[in-house]
Amino acid sequence: MTYCVGMTLKNGLVFMSDTRTNAGVDDIASVKKMHTWTVEGDRVITLMTAGNLATTQALVSLLSERSMKPKKRDPSIMKAPTMFQVARLVGDTLREVIQANEGKKGQRTDSVFNATVILGGQIKGMPPRLFMVYPEGNFIEASTDNPFFQIGETKYGKPILVRAYDPEMSYEDAMKLLLVSFDSTMKANLSVGLPLDYEIYETDSYDASRHGRITTDNPHYRQISDGWGDAIKTAFLSLPDYNFDAE
Amino acid sequence: MTYCVGMTLKNGLVFMSDTRTNAGVDDIASVKKMHTWTVEGDRVITLMTAGNLATTQALVSLLSERSMKPKKRDPSIMKAPTMFQVARLVGDTLREVIQANEGKKGQRTDSVFNATVILGGQIKGMPPRLFMVYPEGNFIEASTDNPFFQIGETKYGKPILVRAYDPEMSYEDAMKLLLVSFDSTMKANLSVGLPLDYEIYETDSYDASRHGRITTDNPHYRQISDGWGDAIKTAFLSLPDYNFDAE
Repeated sequence: MTYCVGMTLKNGLVFMSDTRTNAGVDDIASVKKMHTWTVEGDRVITLMTAGNLATTQALVSLLSERSMKPKKRDPSIMKAPTMFQVARLVGDTLREVIQANEGKKGQRTDSVFNATVILGGQIKGMPPRLFMVYPEGNFIEASTDNPFFQIGETKYGKPILVRAYDPEMSYEDAMKLLLVSFDSTMKANLSVGLPLDYEIYETDSYDASRHGRITTDNPHYRQISDGWGDAIKTAFLSLPDYNFDAE
Repeated sequence: MTYCVGMTLKNGLVFMSDTRTNAGVDDIASVKKMHTWTVEGDRVITLMTAGNLATTQALVSLLSERSMKPKKRDPSIMKAPTMFQVARLVGDTLREVIQANEGKKGQRTDSVFNATVILGGQIKGMPPRLFMVYPEGNFIEASTDNPFFQIGETKYGKPILVRAYDPEMSYEDAMKLLLVSFDSTMKANLSVGLPLDYEIYETDSYDASRHGRITTDNPHYRQISDGWGDAIKTAFLSLPDYNFDAE
């Protein structure tokens, strides 16, 4: 499985993804699920993927290939005029990859070729936008009512996002929130694992250089993971006692 | 869907189940998923079910019918000598119901007849035991390493159980913990809903009378649900700030 979250903030976008990929439980590897394309001063496009690894790698390769010379296809994601058009291109390419696999003759498989994508970024002159793209190629956009998207193993880490998300939060608090959400997921499910990749995109910066990888020995991650266990116990104890007599 | 938790404590067993049942999103009803059989001074057996409602109701009806005169089948769950034998009976009955449905001619369905069961209780002279019974009829037992079982929509409510469960906790704290776990689930997923049923079984009491139903206007539930939102935010703020510079 996989766990990725893309989040809109008042000041920008924040992305985080795990790196675990597995085929069964005895074939585990690390793979980067976050990909960024930049045209300096014009656009930053970030994509995170969950699902069949062959599908998601083909998707990223095709999007990259088609935006490069000499065989550039226009419009590529590097030229599309709006983020909405980028989302359409990503959706069309994703559907194309899945259909190509499913249409093939030869060896059949029970496992599906599906994949889901979180896509975010900004093109000059327009605000940043965040989308979730489905295997069918259609997509939805984040809004104030629906300010973040999760893909993959989404359930364990959702309650804390629902409770603590605030669009006004700083990048530091957003990182903290995402680390708690990822930590809750990793504590409960082996198919999501460290290291984690993150990217902070500041509105109107057209700069994707604020990214990094969080490994087991990242001191902040350790502090937050250990601290959260204690903090949640304290929170639990601070609740009023249940009183059977007063029912 | 459904959410049920059965938990072993040093002093007994605690059970909680929601009551929502749905076929699609436009056919929602309330149904009790917790069933208890008692032989005073000899045994208490409690069962919670998740899955196809026709299957789980047939299971409960068969278990009840077969333990009643005049056509009592021995051993029924009221006569089985150990909780292990009760679990076998429940498993066999569950498999029988599922197979009977799947073997039928006539209208076919895509939805499955599966169901999963949490079974707990105590028979005189032996300690309380807790089992999870699978649709195949086999079952696993709780242990100190694996002290609680969840069935149904289990993921949202698991992180808090993993973090805050303690076998020494009081019944009051166990109720608080379960309410937080259920509240986290209900905040994230419409297929789990109030009211909640609970039962507290005290070791060697052979008495199942400590049970009740928690509705929307239960003041403790309201306090815990509202309080948890604030408590978890405070917990979140108490964590050390993420510091990008010190990475």
